[in-house]
Amino acid sequence: MATPTTPLLKDELDIVIPTIRNLDFLEMWRPFFQPYHLIIVQDGDPTKVIKVPEGFDYELYNRNDVNRILGPKASCISFKDSACRCFGYMVSKKKYIYTIDDDCFVAKDPSGKDINALEQHIKNLLSPSTPFFFNTLYDPYREGADFVRGYPFSLREGAPTAVSHGLWLNIPDYDAPTQLVKPRERNNRYVDAVLTIPKGTLFPMCGMNLAFDRELIGPAMYFGLMGDGQPIGRYDDMWAGWCTKVITDHLSLGIKTGLPYIWHSKASNPFVNLKKEYNGIFWQEELIPFFQSVTLSKEATTVQKCYLELAKQVRAKLGKVDGYFNKLADAMVTWIEAWDELNPPKGAITTTNGPALKSKEKGAPPGFIHHGSPRTQDFRDSPS
Amino acid sequence: MATPTTPLLKDELDIVIPTIRNLDFLEMWRPFFQPYHLIIVQDGDPTKVIKVPEGFDYELYNRNDVNRILGPKASCISFKDSACRCFGYMVSKKKYIYTIDDDCFVAKDPSGKDINALEQHIKNLLSPSTPFFFNTLYDPYREGADFVRGYPFSLREGAPTAVSHGLWLNIPDYDAPTQLVKPRERNNRYVDAVLTIPKGTLFPMCGMNLAFDRELIGPAMYFGLMGDGQPIGRYDDMWAGWCTKVITDHLSLGIKTGLPYIWHSKASNPFVNLKKEYNGIFWQEELIPFFQSVTLSKEATTVQKCYLELAKQVRAKLGKVDGYFNKLADAMVTWIEAWDELNPPKGAITTTNGPALKSKEKGAPPGFIHHGSPRTQDFRDSPS
Repeated sequence: MATPTTPLLKDELDIVIPTIRNLDFLEMWRPFFQPYHLIIVQDGDPTKVIKVPEGFDYELYNRNDVNRILGPKASCISFKDSACRCFGYMVSKKKYIYTIDDDCFVAKDPSGKDINALEQHIKNLLSPSTPFFFNTLYDPYREGADFVRGYPFSLREGAPTAVSHGLWLNIPDYDAPTQLVKPRERNNRYVDAVLTIPKGTLFPMCGMNLAFDRELIGPAMYFGLMGDGQPIGRYDDMWAGWCTKVITDHLSLGIKTGLPYIWHSKASNPFVNLKKEYNGIFWQEELIPFFQSVTLSKEATTVQKCYLELAKQVRAKLGKVDGYFNKLADAMVTWIEAWDELNPPKGAITTTNGPALKSKEKGAPPGFIHHGSPRTQDFRDSPS
Repeated sequence: MATPTTPLLKDELDIVIPTIRNLDFLEMWRPFFQPYHLIIVQDGDPTKVIKVPEGFDYELYNRNDVNRILGPKASCISFKDSACRCFGYMVSKKKYIYTIDDDCFVAKDPSGKDINALEQHIKNLLSPSTPFFFNTLYDPYREGADFVRGYPFSLREGAPTAVSHGLWLNIPDYDAPTQLVKPRERNNRYVDAVLTIPKGTLFPMCGMNLAFDRELIGPAMYFGLMGDGQPIGRYDDMWAGWCTKVITDHLSLGIKTGLPYIWHSKASNPFVNLKKEYNGIFWQEELIPFFQSVTLSKEATTVQKCYLELAKQVRAKLGKVDGYFNKLADAMVTWIEAWDELNPPKGAITTTNGPALKSKEKGAPPGFIHHGSPRTQDFRDSPS
């Protein structure tokens, strides 16, 4: 049994969990997650009741809440797909987000010790990245490591870290074709490294075990239009990752990958996955060159501005790949509008207690639940 | 005691070792190196006799040999600096090179097993690289790993691997300032990963534990002008690495880093190192932007052509940083001329038994030794 550690960033981080089922998986995470506030985004049928283990401080949003809070702008949030999790990023008021899938459990390090994934993510986010030059001993800010001979001294300050991408032991995050070809492959290799994805390099960002700095990059973490009514699934986190990478590169921010590992318990159905993915597999061959060559203007000095420029280019260059990308470009714009509405610039005057409350005044249907654990008393401004 | 494994690429790989001392360190490497041919480049005083343990198949070149074989072109080979090792790359006739420092010993993996560094390098070189897109589970060609979801299928063939850059446990490869600040730091972290340095990203290539494909990249592996009579040292491998990276990127080849580890036994003197490095520390701040922005023309379709274009740009753009770079640009050209002389294009008619023999006819001084172990009988065309 792991002992609870002093919780880092306790009041500055929300844990976002998209789910369709009871959150029993939280039991295993209790020592690490209980001090933090959870934002649960209930996917699919809003009448279903999701059970959350006792003692966790959480708020839960179902589809009715999303519709109520965002009004017509709710169209940008996917339905029947874990891409809906990005709604949680939007309603959070914290500086940091950690998001995890409900089929991910606590992994053990090679010594057999439970890995506090969240703690490692926080370490990753709170130390700089090195996107401009590769360090062969990996993260130079980790204990026992440093910059090696030949690393330019002017680059040793690094760049602020916007994203920490964690990995998975056991079931690797493979696409449907690879799942079909290698049904028994398991990831047993614990690689004790954190490293920065270099500037100019794209990567496949998985949303299973992911942390980021909302203030630095939040508005780019849009998980797109997936699932119900859409011709594609399982590219939500990929889309967010490519957009995010292009924008962090432009803004000189860093993305780290590697530790921490979680234990991914269950492979999803490869046949279902293939159905979701097959358009993506084709389209991706056009998307990657697009993202590799996209440039943002000097005027794009904020994440929002970058994202709107990107939306414009998605429409101009990917619209011809499939009409879906015109819809997606629209949704990207809607997402930013919704983000800005829920996250007004600091110091802006609001006449109500935040836009979420405003939405409630329009007549909130029941279904939104805010549970503050009496123990942690970690209440926040919320639409409850 | 490790058991000798079936030697991979036995007749296609030379091990190049620069040294000033008896090669007792080879004893520990015997199970792994003995099947291979060694090229020993004796640094400094050519009258000194270097002892090589019994049973190794080797040839040894001292400064007199270098002068004799290259004639006036010997000026491109550094003296009193391990940069002289690149002479060994030039006289080899094999497809692959592994180079190792004589203060590097066999490391152990976390299970306590001796690491066959050479075998891992060969695995790295014989499997493709992934320079165009980052794979979060590291080398997708390793057993138990693959490309993750979101990795474009069109890029899964990868690129030919030109270089395998191995790491070091115990004494990390730090520059003099870091050595001075952290005299007791040791690298104890065994990171069980091999990864490709992405296209467009520079890295600090260390020559301590390095393998490469001579046919793919050999002529770029020039270790520059260092040591005796030069205003800089300890940037030999760095220089080679930056040139090599720019050229592999241009030619769509890959460079891998990570495994294998060797055990680096002894830190060099940081005060001596500082003296060697201090010009480099300044100059590097101009070198990195230079290498980051350098472009090669479409006509540069061979490593030699790339390298000569690079030499031209070094003169044009770095000559103003210091006169040293004009000298270095000259030496880069000389290096290519010497390389081509010793390595005539395949199928070219040579009237003698290779250029080394030609040089010998000019009157070779004694000092060049070729020892074929009677056991391995791995003789080759050589100037002996």
